[in-house]
Amino acid sequence: MEGRQAVRELLVAGIRPTHEVVIAAGQNHSGMLAQIVELAGELRVPVKEVARSKFEAMAVTEAPQGVLARAAPLAERDLDDLARGAPDRPAFLLVLDGVTDPGNVGAALRTAECAGVTGAVLGRHRAAHITPAAAKAAAGAVEHVPMAVVPGVPNALSRLGELGVWTVGLDVSAPTAVYDMNVAAEAVALVVGSEGRGLSRLARQRCDVVVTIPLAGRLSSLNAAAATAIGCFEVARHRPRPAPPS
Amino acid sequence: MEGRQAVRELLVAGIRPTHEVVIAAGQNHSGMLAQIVELAGELRVPVKEVARSKFEAMAVTEAPQGVLARAAPLAERDLDDLARGAPDRPAFLLVLDGVTDPGNVGAALRTAECAGVTGAVLGRHRAAHITPAAAKAAAGAVEHVPMAVVPGVPNALSRLGELGVWTVGLDVSAPTAVYDMNVAAEAVALVVGSEGRGLSRLARQRCDVVVTIPLAGRLSSLNAAAATAIGCFEVARHRPRPAPPS
Repeated sequence: MEGRQAVRELLVAGIRPTHEVVIAAGQNHSGMLAQIVELAGELRVPVKEVARSKFEAMAVTEAPQGVLARAAPLAERDLDDLARGAPDRPAFLLVLDGVTDPGNVGAALRTAECAGVTGAVLGRHRAAHITPAAAKAAAGAVEHVPMAVVPGVPNALSRLGELGVWTVGLDVSAPTAVYDMNVAAEAVALVVGSEGRGLSRLARQRCDVVVTIPLAGRLSSLNAAAATAIGCFEVARHRPRPAPPS
Repeated sequence: MEGRQAVRELLVAGIRPTHEVVIAAGQNHSGMLAQIVELAGELRVPVKEVARSKFEAMAVTEAPQGVLARAAPLAERDLDDLARGAPDRPAFLLVLDGVTDPGNVGAALRTAECAGVTGAVLGRHRAAHITPAAAKAAAGAVEHVPMAVVPGVPNALSRLGELGVWTVGLDVSAPTAVYDMNVAAEAVALVVGSEGRGLSRLARQRCDVVVTIPLAGRLSSLNAAAATAIGCFEVARHRPRPAPPS
């Protein structure tokens, strides 16, 4: 994990065993960096300060913001578990169908977490995994959003349907506006396709509904992360807001 | 200008004189690249093919996608002009207050263009300018969205108010939800602050209304581009969609 928000949320969540936090020397230990050091202390995670050049050699993302952590891998969840939603509310899932850019995957997960999703579904093939770059863009969302990695998105959509989850695809050519999806307050999975090609043909066929975000400009498409933001918050607008976490 | 969508939209818009298009050798001339070559031919813009190594040396963004163009600078517009809106609809402006990351500036402009903004306002100081990286992330939106660059955002907000434009700030601590802004169908300017600090204190004071995007997760903030997407499309939801451009 690299980046200040991502490392802080890793420690705040405290779900994954964290082996060490590594900080580049010469930084002012205030603000978020001070929080990270304090959290690591509470959790008895060793904090190591290394020279800037050594730090740069350890980091794999482009702008790791002077801090990284080594932690156990993220736990994968079962699709059937995710279909059950949270104890106090029906499932609200984000399904990424072939989104490949790690920055977009991370940004989509961060926005979805803020919208209150209860889980995310990622395809194992033709899709970005949770790379360090994706985790950094997610700003800690990967710690809070239960995720299932599935062999194929179309089969996962069929399974979700069997389990009573409405599957709603975002597609530029759909006749219905996203504002009229009607199922936002029920158990629902929002399916977002890749930047270039949109939803795969099979995924589109397996969706119960396909809806479009009406565009009012001259450009022909939104980027995948922006479409996810608009779709997820349109669902969130129709759902009771959960009580803030204690 | 670098990147396939950005260069294509530069040529499609045809507003700025374009001196040349440069393409890296060894690419398959199909799809968007073929469109670019065809558009350049129609506009009598020279197309130069250069070796991949030479192209990389010319490009300044990280992933220029094998194509760049040299064009006249973007024209800046007057704030008072932008306040008038479009012939068929009242002003719908996006104001970026201290957003510094070029990728976020570009992504925000792209999304805003898709939502149908009639203009964008950028601060001259403490803000990202339309760098090649911002223009690439904007995917051509900079050709279609009239932009004003102002010495100070707070003064620009006061001026917009005098000209009859409602100024609506997005702020995480506002008591009102973005869904209840009530002025979305009128002349309106949506003000988005920086990733880290949100709206500046002065900009916040000068806004007629401040609204928040209600968050339902554990993370404390959205990224600036995501907040822009949700805010712009919430405004767009309340406005009649303009006729598609002919």
